[in-house]
Amino acid sequence: MTQTDHVAVLDGGHDREQHEGARRLLATPDRLRSFFAPRSIALVGASDGSGWARFIMESLATAGFAGTLRFVHHARPEAFGRPTVPSLRALGEPVDLAFVLAPTHAVEGVLDDAAAAGIHNVVVLASGYGDGGGEEGRERERRLVERAVELDLTLLGPNCLGFVNAVAAVAPFGLHIVPPLRRGPVGVVLQSGALTSNVLAFARAHGIGISLLTSMGNEAVITAADVLEHLITDEDTRVIGLFLETIRDPQRFSALARRALQVGKPIVALKVGRSPAGQLAALAHTGAVAGDDAVVAAAFRQLGVIRVGSLEELLVTAGMLGSGQVPRGRRMGVVTASGGACDIIADRSADEGVEIVEFSEPTTARLREVLPSFAAARNPLDVTGIILADRTSANANLGDAALNAVAADPNLDFVFNMVSLPAAAPPDPSVPERRIADVAATIACSPVPVVNFSATCSDLSEFGGSLLDRHGLHVVGGIEFGLTAVGHAIRWNEVRQDRAARPAPPSPPRATSDGLPNGAWSEARARELLRAAGVPAVPAELVTEADAAVAAAERLGCPVVLKICSAAIAHKSDIGGVALGLGDPDAVRAAFVRVLAAGRAVTDDVEGVLVSPMRTGGTELFVGVTVDPSFGPVLAVGLGGVFIEVLHDVSLRVLPVDQEEVVRMLGELRGAPVLAGARGVAPADLPRVAEVVARLAECARLLGPALQTVEINPLWVDGSRVEALDVLVVTGCSS
Amino acid sequence: MTQTDHVAVLDGGHDREQHEGARRLLATPDRLRSFFAPRSIALVGASDGSGWARFIMESLATAGFAGTLRFVHHARPEAFGRPTVPSLRALGEPVDLAFVLAPTHAVEGVLDDAAAAGIHNVVVLASGYGDGGGEEGRERERRLVERAVELDLTLLGPNCLGFVNAVAAVAPFGLHIVPPLRRGPVGVVLQSGALTSNVLAFARAHGIGISLLTSMGNEAVITAADVLEHLITDEDTRVIGLFLETIRDPQRFSALARRALQVGKPIVALKVGRSPAGQLAALAHTGAVAGDDAVVAAAFRQLGVIRVGSLEELLVTAGMLGSGQVPRGRRMGVVTASGGACDIIADRSADEGVEIVEFSEPTTARLREVLPSFAAARNPLDVTGIILADRTSANANLGDAALNAVAADPNLDFVFNMVSLPAAAPPDPSVPERRIADVAATIACSPVPVVNFSATCSDLSEFGGSLLDRHGLHVVGGIEFGLTAVGHAIRWNEVRQDRAARPAPPSPPRATSDGLPNGAWSEARARELLRAAGVPAVPAELVTEADAAVAAAERLGCPVVLKICSAAIAHKSDIGGVALGLGDPDAVRAAFVRVLAAGRAVTDDVEGVLVSPMRTGGTELFVGVTVDPSFGPVLAVGLGGVFIEVLHDVSLRVLPVDQEEVVRMLGELRGAPVLAGARGVAPADLPRVAEVVARLAECARLLGPALQTVEINPLWVDGSRVEALDVLVVTGCSS
Repeated sequence: MTQTDHVAVLDGGHDREQHEGARRLLATPDRLRSFFAPRSIALVGASDGSGWARFIMESLATAGFAGTLRFVHHARPEAFGRPTVPSLRALGEPVDLAFVLAPTHAVEGVLDDAAAAGIHNVVVLASGYGDGGGEEGRERERRLVERAVELDLTLLGPNCLGFVNAVAAVAPFGLHIVPPLRRGPVGVVLQSGALTSNVLAFARAHGIGISLLTSMGNEAVITAADVLEHLITDEDTRVIGLFLETIRDPQRFSALARRALQVGKPIVALKVGRSPAGQLAALAHTGAVAGDDAVVAAAFRQLGVIRVGSLEELLVTAGMLGSGQVPRGRRMGVVTASGGACDIIADRSADEGVEIVEFSEPTTARLREVLPSFAAARNPLDVTGIILADRTSANANLGDAALNAVAADPNLDFVFNMVSLPAAAPPDPSVPERRIADVAATIACSPVPVVNFSATCSDLSEFGGSLLDRHGLHVVGGIEFGLTAVGHAIRWNEVRQDRAARPAPPSPPRATSDGLPNGAWSEARARELLRAAGVPAVPAELVTEADAAVAAAERLGCPVVLKICSAAIAHKSDIGGVALGLGDPDAVRAAFVRVLAAGRAVTDDVEGVLVSPMRTGGTELFVGVTVDPSFGPVLAVGLGGVFIEVLHDVSLRVLPVDQEEVVRMLGELRGAPVLAGARGVAPADLPRVAEVVARLAECARLLGPALQTVEINPLWVDGSRVEALDVLVVTGCSS
Repeated sequence: MTQTDHVAVLDGGHDREQHEGARRLLATPDRLRSFFAPRSIALVGASDGSGWARFIMESLATAGFAGTLRFVHHARPEAFGRPTVPSLRALGEPVDLAFVLAPTHAVEGVLDDAAAAGIHNVVVLASGYGDGGGEEGRERERRLVERAVELDLTLLGPNCLGFVNAVAAVAPFGLHIVPPLRRGPVGVVLQSGALTSNVLAFARAHGIGISLLTSMGNEAVITAADVLEHLITDEDTRVIGLFLETIRDPQRFSALARRALQVGKPIVALKVGRSPAGQLAALAHTGAVAGDDAVVAAAFRQLGVIRVGSLEELLVTAGMLGSGQVPRGRRMGVVTASGGACDIIADRSADEGVEIVEFSEPTTARLREVLPSFAAARNPLDVTGIILADRTSANANLGDAALNAVAADPNLDFVFNMVSLPAAAPPDPSVPERRIADVAATIACSPVPVVNFSATCSDLSEFGGSLLDRHGLHVVGGIEFGLTAVGHAIRWNEVRQDRAARPAPPSPPRATSDGLPNGAWSEARARELLRAAGVPAVPAELVTEADAAVAAAERLGCPVVLKICSAAIAHKSDIGGVALGLGDPDAVRAAFVRVLAAGRAVTDDVEGVLVSPMRTGGTELFVGVTVDPSFGPVLAVGLGGVFIEVLHDVSLRVLPVDQEEVVRMLGELRGAPVLAGARGVAPADLPRVAEVVARLAECARLLGPALQTVEINPLWVDGSRVEALDVLVVTGCSS
């Protein structure tokens, strides 16, 4: 919806840079802490006839806002049965926040009034700025930012619905919130307006509590990254959910994500624009040119940002992570009262890399004591439907006894426990009450986390939800999203542990790239770079005479390869500048003449001809570093041949990477079995390969802002022999 | 839950065959029609203390059962405040159905009573049969089937919860059904007991109406296939949902699925056992040995059976297909009031192969008239949140006006229309009422189907659900499952159209395989089979003398290949029985001696040596037919080299297939670009390749029950030249 989704500042980049320092001072975590917790609010331009104003009034009531509420209207003496003042200047004393509902043309005047009244925080609803307002609108937004900086105004919007702070019980928010508002550990930042309603409704229906939720609007002053930073420092927030159309400042986003990982606060992100169609749709709303989504995916994985594909997955995952019951390993015990559920869980666990391990002997023995004779004491456990039909008898405690036994199993990292809640209060509500109390007591004593789940993604009934609340339990919505959430949590934890165990990333590269060529390097110079970086290359001699070529070939040993060496020729094969498999002096001599002539036919700038021994057997890799417009230098590694040409089978990482990470990259390739020695090839020495690749990546990164491309294709691998057979380096200003 | 999930008859196969004919007569669609619509029911062994009995009473009430209910108890004079009779024999007149709650040991006696009382339909709840009752239990189940056949009893179970017939308003069903029970077009068959409750609850919460739902139990008499057949003929059922742990009779299942496709009744199946862990879990409940899941997946695709991964996907898909608004093509128009929703939809559409095409010029013009100035008249369409905030003004009809314009667009096959329903009745319920009435009116006149969706998978509120009901609308649960359902529907429709356009599958293969060898064939004999089937093979001459080998090589042209020819040697290379690239007579002579000696070293049964020209260049395929224990002969096609050895990149089909289907198989391969001419190879003549592969598949199929393996590896392809370079045929009794 345009009021809030069209968050674009189409070409505000230049002005942003100018104002970035001043703008950031308006949106520090300190400023935002008070911005999002106002105890007095003025609604400017509010009238009974405005739908937005009615929604805001309703939302404030739903949130239980107990502060001061003032109404400002230039023409009407009353709003919502209360007297108005004609301008913020007439308030008498400043409010903590002004929510500006005035039309676009009146907004600047209201900001002046706000500043004059000693107000420092404003939300601007009006659209017609960067959001589809054309050049005029963009100019209007630039002026708005300037004015905010000038007047020391922290501003959310424009084109923004406001925010919901459930912890501080204040929700100046221009859409419907289904009551009651549920407070809790999940902070949410949305680059969308209309979805806020859906997010709040789903969260509420699944017992997921919100700390702060903001709809970002155009991000003229407060950006999504600012709110993210605030939430990382906010102690009421344990997990952060993002809906992102664009990442405006990937460097800052990455730094914040690293900090969140460090402090153990998971970020769950629904980043749209995975597909060309999705990029087009997001472009329509943000004006931002999408980077390569594969790079976004790689960056998220490296940063431990959990990427999800749907709103349900976003919220169920965040809810589980916020519940305090978070799996820390892959070994899962399952307790259900349904064999069918066990089947589905087993399949989905396999998808997520979650292991359903065997129960230990004592667990099995204990289960045999409590289970009916016809039930098998096996993981995944089906305690059988007897617990449903036979609650009054000895089986009443069966489910809990089974959970108790399983939770104590030393083989397990966590338990996935099915909970069925009544749709409505039964005639004797003490029965489910006791059952849930037992589960809660068991979980409180459990040595491992217990993730409760329902069979399907369904809303909690009022009775069911209140039962859970009374006993402090959380139930994830359904096997499908529940196991997805479990998989996310496990992988997040693995990244976290891995990052904690590793040294800090190396220092940033030099800020200038003086003295580097502007364009492609000759191969001889590029080989120098490799040598300096400790990247082994196939021996090569640069010659300028046929006799020297023959002599070099004899020294290096036939068969040899001849390649034209010129900074002006990037694609040597295409112009006939390469000769392979030259077995004797005559062949070398003839090839020298041919290759040199081919080079000279296209440029005067020929350094000579490189002579190298021909490598056969082994495996060929592609290793390249390019620069993503968003995330900067990116390393791509793949196997040569069909793997890269037909299957586009590459593994990506944003730099820097270390050797260990490159080993992981190689392992992710579909062609990984080839490196492991499939098809009769000698197994590659993966640590050695990774060491070489990591060195190349680091030397590319250290080229600094001039880096455009550093590529070894192929990198030849034969067991522990690793050699660059060909290298391309391009530096300079990108056009 | 063991009461119903443990549906196994572990080794009943033999008895099943004996009794299959008699058993089937008890479970014909005619018999099942009356079985599932009883107007009088006797509960046998019911007492107030039994949880199952209480559930059945409650379920019957929820379904609105208005027929006669009788109680039978051998000891107690009363049940649920009503008098009992001591035995079915004492009923006076027969009931349409006896629901037997008696314990296992008493069941046989009850069956005798039932027959004596003129009753022909029984449900048996008791477990302890094939379900984990050991050998004794299996024997008990065999006796149960015998008795049923003898007494002409149609029997559901044992170890079964019963069924819910919403259309006939009768639900003899032993678990809780959250009221109200919703009748509708979806028939459901579950090889699970406990999941029935979850399925009913989710369906109800999403406005998905059920015709008949059965929990199958052990399938001693009535099988899942019988109920499937009944539902295909049942005119109240428009779509069929299955939860399957095992497919007991794949041939019959396939035939039924074909019939369902023919009559246009989609089957949506959650078949578990996709993973080894899932197979293990299902095995625990069914005792059935799982076939290769890849074959199940292939068979489902061929049969148009929609395979889903979760209960939510099962029901949302079935609900959409049952709604009557079913997409018939890939071109989608999207109407929302959220730019964020547009983004998510665009990404998910790309996943599903759904195309968001441009609106036609007249549509765009019409949208410009109705949309606010800041909204873009573009697909996916965001009519903007103005419709939420400004309902009283001219924008009140904006959403419907936009839907109207989009639905009329000739570029589109269907519309995906976002509907937001209130969580509770607003102060003026006529506002949403009018809005939904407008949507309904537009859809009624729409030339293309309109699939309504909500943003997330959430329960319908009571108010929202009743709104939809009053106006005959269906809303699919969320973007995520909604677009999955859309993708399923489109693909289902494509399979349906494809099947309708193609000739009927060829006749079944011969029933006997007399005269075929018992084991591997010699290559010479296998080549005969190819020749007879019209499958081209590389020229080859069988020689037994070195001179003859040399002469053959001269005729065929060097370089040649020599291969030992013996039925006793399946893997020729392994024993040194192959010599490649022989360029001159001396090499041929030496190789002949070597190859022959290698063969004679392992067997006396050597026919000679095959001499063939050596093929180079081009592409090599793997083509193999093997026999799946469930679905029978299966064709696998893949590219050679890393594609099959490292990537296991094969496409599968259950036979028979025609040329067109093989073209599709080749297109599914990840290596397909190689066949299309990637990497400088001549593009393969795909119709020609497919013709050859289809002939091979058909000749394999026609070997009948003796078929074990027919494999061409490699099948050499160079443009339109296609030749089998090596062939392996194995027939005989499988051990």
